[in-house]
Amino acid sequence: MAVGETRFPEMPVIEGLRLGAAMAGIKKPDRRDLVVIEIPEGARVAGAFTRNAFCAAPVMVAREHLAACVARGEGARYLVVNTGNANAGTGATGLRDARTTCAELARLAGVEEASVLPFSTGVIGEPLPMDRLLAGLPGAVQALDDGSDAWLAAGEGILTTDTRAKGASVTLTLGDATVTINGIAKGSGMIRPDMATMLAFVATDAAIEQALLDGLLREAVERSFNCITVDSDTSTNDACLLIATGRGAAVVDGEALERFREGLLQVMAELAQAVIRDGEGATKFVTLRVEEARSRREALDVAFTVAHSPLVKTALYASDANWGRILAAVGRAPVEEFDVDLVTIDLGEVRLVENGGRAPGYAEEAGSAVMAREEIEIRIALGRGEQHATVWTSDLSHDYVSINADYRS
Amino acid sequence: MAVGETRFPEMPVIEGLRLGAAMAGIKKPDRRDLVVIEIPEGARVAGAFTRNAFCAAPVMVAREHLAACVARGEGARYLVVNTGNANAGTGATGLRDARTTCAELARLAGVEEASVLPFSTGVIGEPLPMDRLLAGLPGAVQALDDGSDAWLAAGEGILTTDTRAKGASVTLTLGDATVTINGIAKGSGMIRPDMATMLAFVATDAAIEQALLDGLLREAVERSFNCITVDSDTSTNDACLLIATGRGAAVVDGEALERFREGLLQVMAELAQAVIRDGEGATKFVTLRVEEARSRREALDVAFTVAHSPLVKTALYASDANWGRILAAVGRAPVEEFDVDLVTIDLGEVRLVENGGRAPGYAEEAGSAVMAREEIEIRIALGRGEQHATVWTSDLSHDYVSINADYRS
Repeated sequence: MAVGETRFPEMPVIEGLRLGAAMAGIKKPDRRDLVVIEIPEGARVAGAFTRNAFCAAPVMVAREHLAACVARGEGARYLVVNTGNANAGTGATGLRDARTTCAELARLAGVEEASVLPFSTGVIGEPLPMDRLLAGLPGAVQALDDGSDAWLAAGEGILTTDTRAKGASVTLTLGDATVTINGIAKGSGMIRPDMATMLAFVATDAAIEQALLDGLLREAVERSFNCITVDSDTSTNDACLLIATGRGAAVVDGEALERFREGLLQVMAELAQAVIRDGEGATKFVTLRVEEARSRREALDVAFTVAHSPLVKTALYASDANWGRILAAVGRAPVEEFDVDLVTIDLGEVRLVENGGRAPGYAEEAGSAVMAREEIEIRIALGRGEQHATVWTSDLSHDYVSINADYRS
Repeated sequence: MAVGETRFPEMPVIEGLRLGAAMAGIKKPDRRDLVVIEIPEGARVAGAFTRNAFCAAPVMVAREHLAACVARGEGARYLVVNTGNANAGTGATGLRDARTTCAELARLAGVEEASVLPFSTGVIGEPLPMDRLLAGLPGAVQALDDGSDAWLAAGEGILTTDTRAKGASVTLTLGDATVTINGIAKGSGMIRPDMATMLAFVATDAAIEQALLDGLLREAVERSFNCITVDSDTSTNDACLLIATGRGAAVVDGEALERFREGLLQVMAELAQAVIRDGEGATKFVTLRVEEARSRREALDVAFTVAHSPLVKTALYASDANWGRILAAVGRAPVEEFDVDLVTIDLGEVRLVENGGRAPGYAEEAGSAVMAREEIEIRIALGRGEQHATVWTSDLSHDYVSINADYRS
């Protein structure tokens, strides 16, 4: 199941950046499950990784290798991604397997081991099938290409319980040059990213120096992947990479920087929202906007408390305008000196709650009409400040339970 | 659905304390939905109420009336409880209805309005059907009785989506006197109490002065109702009352106080666990024990993070020993400077995790055998301190989704 249409877009070439996918049979036969991304020399790469204390072996190695590249004033040269197995909770064996994967790709490509960053996603706690993974690498390297089909193949090659590939692209005109930003992502369950999503790879041909690139990634992650939740569970393998090849226009400051920042946020927000639309068992795409908070942190706390409430999520699944459950969730959010009489709650264009209770003009049929939609906006105004935040989430359906009760079988 | 057997016990008489239930037809016909509890003069009463900022009208009035009684050096004289309607999110009308209910019972019983405490549970956001509620009061008063059947009728009269009445009782020998503690509770969904449960009424014939009674209640709630979760949603109507009639032995200090404290915790923990066994859609009763934490707060944070994880809860439902999901939940708990290599996780008698990964001796069949049980214990040792905490929870099943997607229809 998935909400709405998410078309995989036409992806313009980013010169020097190539993607290749192969079928390595890591968990299941006959599906793309191994992806290699080639980054041209001279590129800059920024990364954001999960903050789950149990982070997976590939996350540890990717973080270490990226730090080594940055210290040398370089970008990474290759990313290698497998699906079907997360290589998480695998101890010393897992670390050795992640390093071996990098070493083998480095050998095939003629680069240093530390220039390769590894990523894995799938079942936690089982050893990587290294024979099949290593045997698949040459095929992925041979498939490397810079066309739109290669982006789609890579987008498909990183999926797990996802039902469709997720891509986004914008092309910006900066003065007399154009700059492209392409991205792909995967994620459907175990989605409550903390500083990163399941896996997202975003690339641009812009020329951006390392510190600025790091800051742009951090800021865009904060307002895209860190604002989505399917089930409140933060993955052990979340990672988001931003690659700037540097072959296109330079982005340094002023209006060009501003437009690049907006374009990057657009690509990353589209990818983050595509993850929610494809959330496990999702039948609704819900935008939760919390306004009039004292701080953005407070607005996010309220939004996530509502977004994580199983009772709100089952009411959304049932298309039931059960505003009492929204109100109860708002009321237990961690907000100091909370005067609930100032709170208003709107469902789409319908006012549900004011003065601590049902809005005088509210009629059940009006609420039900909005709840019947596939895309729903809930606006909660706290009446205590000027800050706001938006969070995107899905509902809790029978299919969510089925998918997660049966995942390993 | 519900886990295991919970027999409603034989409840000894607590002299002067009587309970009466009636069928007022508040939401549905032909079921007990209105309960009156009569407390003898001279009793002391302590209360713990929800900390949801949107607290219901009856909670506000009960808190206010109880404070007035305590200020006069008295206990409350009557409790009145309706099910089928929470009188929450009902604004000024709700407050007036709660006061009118108290006033009418006070008139019937010949006491002051402020000696009556009101409680409501059920659907949020609909006005109380005052005509039916008030018409039912005389029948509940006429039914007042101190026998075990009256406790059972009251236990049944406060249920909503619960499938069975919940009672617990202990009789303690203190020197040459005996003291009885009886309690009833309701709750099945919207269960993540914060300083109280959905509704629990506990009474003893012991003589205990107000400040000590308040302290005993606070302490017992902290280790019983505040250690359970079904779905992480804190109700707007949670309340827990402790009544000491004072007609039996005095409890002041020393060994008598110690034994009373233990007996009270036993009754309240049994009631709290009965709520989980009867959790909405529950097929498993899960004890989460977190050990070797730096503080009890830290142990509770880890335990609740695991207990709230939809992925852990669906794995429990599927009887799938998916330890990777437990590990991922532990890893995202709010713990500072967390060295996950020191963590061990045991499922019943089976070691799942050590040194950050699967325990060397672990075999899937051994884990699956424990997961197949109805009652499961998960022990998580953090390896960083000496504090511990225990939390009880249930699984996330198709029935949970069905119950909450259909509740209002």
